[in-house]
Amino acid sequence: MPSSRVWPAFAAALIVFLAANTGRADEGMWTFDNFPTDAVKARYGANITPTWLDQVRLSVVRLSNCTASFVSADGLILTNHHCSAACIDDLSTAEQNYLAKGFIARSRNEERKCSRQIADVLVAMENITETINAATKGLSEQAANDARKKTLTALEQACEESSAKQNSRLKCEAVTLYDGGQYFIYKYKRYTDVRLVFAPEEGIAAFGGDPDNFQFPRWCLDMSVLRVYENNQPIKSPNFLRVNFAGPAAGEAVFVAGHPGSTERLLTVSQLLEQRSNAPTSLLRSSELRGRYIEFGKRGAEQQRIAQDPLMGLENGLKVRRKQLDALLDEHLLDIKIKQETALRAAIAKDKALTARTGSAWDDISRALQTSRAIELPYSQLEGGAAFSSQLFRYARLLVRGTTEREKPNTDRLREFADARLPRIQQQLQAPTPVYPELEKLTLSFSLERMREYLGPDHKLVRSLLPKDSPESLAARLIDNSKLADPVVRMKLWQSGASAVAASDDPMIALARSVDADTRAVRKQMEDTVEAPIRVATERIAAARFAIFGTKVYPDATFTLRLNYGVVQGWKENGADVTPFTNLGRLFERATGADPFRVPDSWIAVHDQLDMKTPFNLSTTNDIVGGNSGSPLINARGELVGLLFDGNIHSISGSFWFDAERNRAVAVHPAIIRVALEKVYRAEELLRELTVAR
Amino acid sequence: MPSSRVWPAFAAALIVFLAANTGRADEGMWTFDNFPTDAVKARYGANITPTWLDQVRLSVVRLSNCTASFVSADGLILTNHHCSAACIDDLSTAEQNYLAKGFIARSRNEERKCSRQIADVLVAMENITETINAATKGLSEQAANDARKKTLTALEQACEESSAKQNSRLKCEAVTLYDGGQYFIYKYKRYTDVRLVFAPEEGIAAFGGDPDNFQFPRWCLDMSVLRVYENNQPIKSPNFLRVNFAGPAAGEAVFVAGHPGSTERLLTVSQLLEQRSNAPTSLLRSSELRGRYIEFGKRGAEQQRIAQDPLMGLENGLKVRRKQLDALLDEHLLDIKIKQETALRAAIAKDKALTARTGSAWDDISRALQTSRAIELPYSQLEGGAAFSSQLFRYARLLVRGTTEREKPNTDRLREFADARLPRIQQQLQAPTPVYPELEKLTLSFSLERMREYLGPDHKLVRSLLPKDSPESLAARLIDNSKLADPVVRMKLWQSGASAVAASDDPMIALARSVDADTRAVRKQMEDTVEAPIRVATERIAAARFAIFGTKVYPDATFTLRLNYGVVQGWKENGADVTPFTNLGRLFERATGADPFRVPDSWIAVHDQLDMKTPFNLSTTNDIVGGNSGSPLINARGELVGLLFDGNIHSISGSFWFDAERNRAVAVHPAIIRVALEKVYRAEELLRELTVAR
Repeated sequence: MPSSRVWPAFAAALIVFLAANTGRADEGMWTFDNFPTDAVKARYGANITPTWLDQVRLSVVRLSNCTASFVSADGLILTNHHCSAACIDDLSTAEQNYLAKGFIARSRNEERKCSRQIADVLVAMENITETINAATKGLSEQAANDARKKTLTALEQACEESSAKQNSRLKCEAVTLYDGGQYFIYKYKRYTDVRLVFAPEEGIAAFGGDPDNFQFPRWCLDMSVLRVYENNQPIKSPNFLRVNFAGPAAGEAVFVAGHPGSTERLLTVSQLLEQRSNAPTSLLRSSELRGRYIEFGKRGAEQQRIAQDPLMGLENGLKVRRKQLDALLDEHLLDIKIKQETALRAAIAKDKALTARTGSAWDDISRALQTSRAIELPYSQLEGGAAFSSQLFRYARLLVRGTTEREKPNTDRLREFADARLPRIQQQLQAPTPVYPELEKLTLSFSLERMREYLGPDHKLVRSLLPKDSPESLAARLIDNSKLADPVVRMKLWQSGASAVAASDDPMIALARSVDADTRAVRKQMEDTVEAPIRVATERIAAARFAIFGTKVYPDATFTLRLNYGVVQGWKENGADVTPFTNLGRLFERATGADPFRVPDSWIAVHDQLDMKTPFNLSTTNDIVGGNSGSPLINARGELVGLLFDGNIHSISGSFWFDAERNRAVAVHPAIIRVALEKVYRAEELLRELTVAR
Repeated sequence: MPSSRVWPAFAAALIVFLAANTGRADEGMWTFDNFPTDAVKARYGANITPTWLDQVRLSVVRLSNCTASFVSADGLILTNHHCSAACIDDLSTAEQNYLAKGFIARSRNEERKCSRQIADVLVAMENITETINAATKGLSEQAANDARKKTLTALEQACEESSAKQNSRLKCEAVTLYDGGQYFIYKYKRYTDVRLVFAPEEGIAAFGGDPDNFQFPRWCLDMSVLRVYENNQPIKSPNFLRVNFAGPAAGEAVFVAGHPGSTERLLTVSQLLEQRSNAPTSLLRSSELRGRYIEFGKRGAEQQRIAQDPLMGLENGLKVRRKQLDALLDEHLLDIKIKQETALRAAIAKDKALTARTGSAWDDISRALQTSRAIELPYSQLEGGAAFSSQLFRYARLLVRGTTEREKPNTDRLREFADARLPRIQQQLQAPTPVYPELEKLTLSFSLERMREYLGPDHKLVRSLLPKDSPESLAARLIDNSKLADPVVRMKLWQSGASAVAASDDPMIALARSVDADTRAVRKQMEDTVEAPIRVATERIAAARFAIFGTKVYPDATFTLRLNYGVVQGWKENGADVTPFTNLGRLFERATGADPFRVPDSWIAVHDQLDMKTPFNLSTTNDIVGGNSGSPLINARGELVGLLFDGNIHSISGSFWFDAERNRAVAVHPAIIRVALEKVYRAEELLRELTVAR
């Protein structure tokens, strides 16, 4: 990077343009309405047409926390194993452990419903920025914040009502892009009957476990296959991606369409520093919980089974946040961010009108963050739920709040309880998700103990909850006496409404009731004194950025559909080349026989029939982040040539910037998918459906 | 603090003088040969005479990791409960848990030996700076590093030999002050027969447990009483502190003599930033281990007992390092450090000769830290022992290395195996410290697992240790088959020497042997490429500091004897006054009945006989840090008026600076000691010995 001397305005703007949030190298998580087709053509010769874009968009599926894509005309979708792990876990029992043993439906009636899964297909996007700006114009920060939310809820509602009238019954979700620079309504076709078709053993899906997670070279068959149903029949899905089992060549241009969850590349320096200061608390908490889960798992086979999936999720998050903290502690990265911000502000300062419109946005954010510091702790413990880590408590809070909110006019509610969101809440309440009391006691006693540590033993809330109890004895009493593990009990309360919930003597409901007023108060305080001023300020900064750069910027990830481009490529690690493909032979060489480096018996049994040169995983330069898991890797002809499942370790800093030198996406090669289905799992029907689809 | 504009040189120097490392407010951990008696007289009117200093110095005792003081003429010493916790734990069994139940020797023959404890009294200090400087003059950094160590070992040896000839048999320890600005030989009278006389229940000694640790207001009877023996008889200790049970008044001047363990106030900014980057790794490790210990303790009463003491130690360290990281993330603190460093360098730049002598010291340190980054990971795993957290492994390494090193000439050995240090090693090897296999498996499997995580599964060391095993199965095999838990086995190997150790088939010895070459190699690399250049650079910076400030600076803490002054005082927390005394009544009000807020039955039984206004703990402005635990709080008349046991939460940033506004030391009030001995424990003999001593 250039040194810190003051450049002329143009150069300054150029630096911002190049380094901050535009398509340098293969950077960018582009919305489909603003994909840089010209740049892609210039760089890779690939001709991305509107038809290509429509076809891909309608083939891509958003799952509850991942991406998937249709791979046959009969509603078959391909995603990662880890995207289906919660479903596989829900379907498993001590006797029938599908995580460990894998799952294959040999016929359609063996396909098993994932009770909490959804599948959304984005069918339309409507820009509502002007409506929102009109609704908030001239209002105070707090009033604007309230008006913005009400308007978003009202627009979602109007959209769904209008769609219902046309019998298309779309789900309408407000989307905030560019930290408030744009507002959209995204319209999805939503499917709520998603069934498990195939999952290999976790031992091969996540070979290498946590040690290998975010590493490359890699050997993971991180795949699962689901099917989307409607009216108890597989849907017809004319838009799907044909699988090209040969996979891409090194250096070939590839595209990733999916739902990157969250990036923070547009944050101000003060926001980054605040994140840096806050990061250790949650990291330490997760790290302790990791130790508790692991030790808990040693009590016995069943304990190991029930701790396995939460542990994997926890370890994944831990690694991500740990590497994010490393990035924030990297003086070089921070220096670049400071220079970018300085350059942007200098460019604004050259324009009087823009300066006036932008106002004291950066200072406003810093001030709001100061305010945030004072309430962050009770906020995270109460509204964030850190004090009550328990599935039963989460049900209780949903019931207490949901039934109360439901009685209010739609636009007066907490946004998460707007009409458009109630069906999803109901789906969760009625799902027969297993609740394990022993594990619940672990997480709840742990979280109560940390609440006491962080708030202090003399805090009002702590005194009121633990006047005589230890965290353990309180957790045990709550878990043992609550009936909320039963979906019938939950649904009865949900349907009976606020008065029934208010009258319930379920101890978990009683706990959720008892803290609700304080919880709402600290949330309101956070919204009014932190969120409101920051939103106004970020809208101003976004507007200034648009004024300077036009549409040549992309928004931070928001778990909405994006497309990016890249190329099959390795990188240099400590001076040595990392090649972009791994092969099957090395999997067996690396196996130790002990988890997580144990190759499943199913693979060992057919070892001699397998071609050890079969490509296994590959790396690409695509700009991805969590939420992209399960995304198709697509070639210029629109074929699926890989199944994205991870990034390399350097990709984690992608939360804050794109490191073109080292940031790599990691995908399952389609060749190993074919070998697995054909030779290992003998899933002929499934392979036929995928192959016919060519 | 002043703003960042450039000040004239004098003002700059003054700022450094005031804020960096001299007696602003009550700051300073002074050596006894450089105590600022004039400043104390001016500030508090206290007349600290050479006699006072000698009397106090000879009354203060250094324990293996704490401070204590003589409180009777018969070798009785007073220290904290947590300083004796390891001893109490060693003496406890599943049937007789002295940590939980307390311990009172009703007569001298009931006093129980602490097998790993020592008691050192500092009797003389010899400045050897010129000898060291002469030994290293003109040598390269690496050669100087080696020569310095050899010379220190040789001087220690000469000192002990000379003392032995005079029959005084002193222990001689080289001490490095001012990061290399001064070198000393400290001469101690060492006692190795230290016996437990009294300890209250941990429930009152550490009332509030980890949640209350480093907090004030506070209610901990964190005391234990030991007695020093020689030739199986209590020693005569003519120098002792008389206990003034009335305690000090608010605002009264008080002094703390003790052994602050480690501060880093003289570090350069680059060193602080390096610490900041490195801190998360060890924090996360400890946090996970915390979770493992807690969950392990839930397996049963015996598991809870054996995990209790390691857990307390771990949680204490975790809080310290967490708050240190917070301090390092505090932009304000960093800003001050940058300004101090800039001012010091500016003052040096005004003097040509000084500039030449100081050279590129700061840049040299930064470069060495870069080198350090590349080897820090294998260094901490191997030489730091992070990969092998096991008492049995530590024994094995002591045996493997110790017997090998012992065969070399004294000055050629790794410093920790010099002749002067061998008796202490032998004491540890022969102590009948309990080893709990179940706990050993927990820590060893944990550390192997993290070794694999941090080094990566394909690292040479990981592949060689875990070709087929999981961390768990390897740990189990090593622990189950090692015989090193038996002190007889250890001592036999120790006495038989290197060839016996080389021939041993104990699997833990085999492990220690197998990694020793790599471990020594990375240590040598760290010494030559990091330690050596940093030592030369810090010696230069220290010399420059002396040239500018003379003796009006104090050295960083090094677990050697220091004296500081302060006053009984609270502070303002969020605008509210914290008063400096707590009383007994509030203890009972805060009790919940559940650990760690459960008042022991012994106290509840006599509740009605106690004066609820009895002072319990107090806070002072003294500048203390870990290692000061157990230090006497002394008034201007030389009486013991408190037993230091902690600092408040703000004191933790004292590692890097002294925050005069909020940094407070925390002590047990002598009044509660009298009440406890008289009314609760009815330890009449002990109380008489303490009272007669008045």
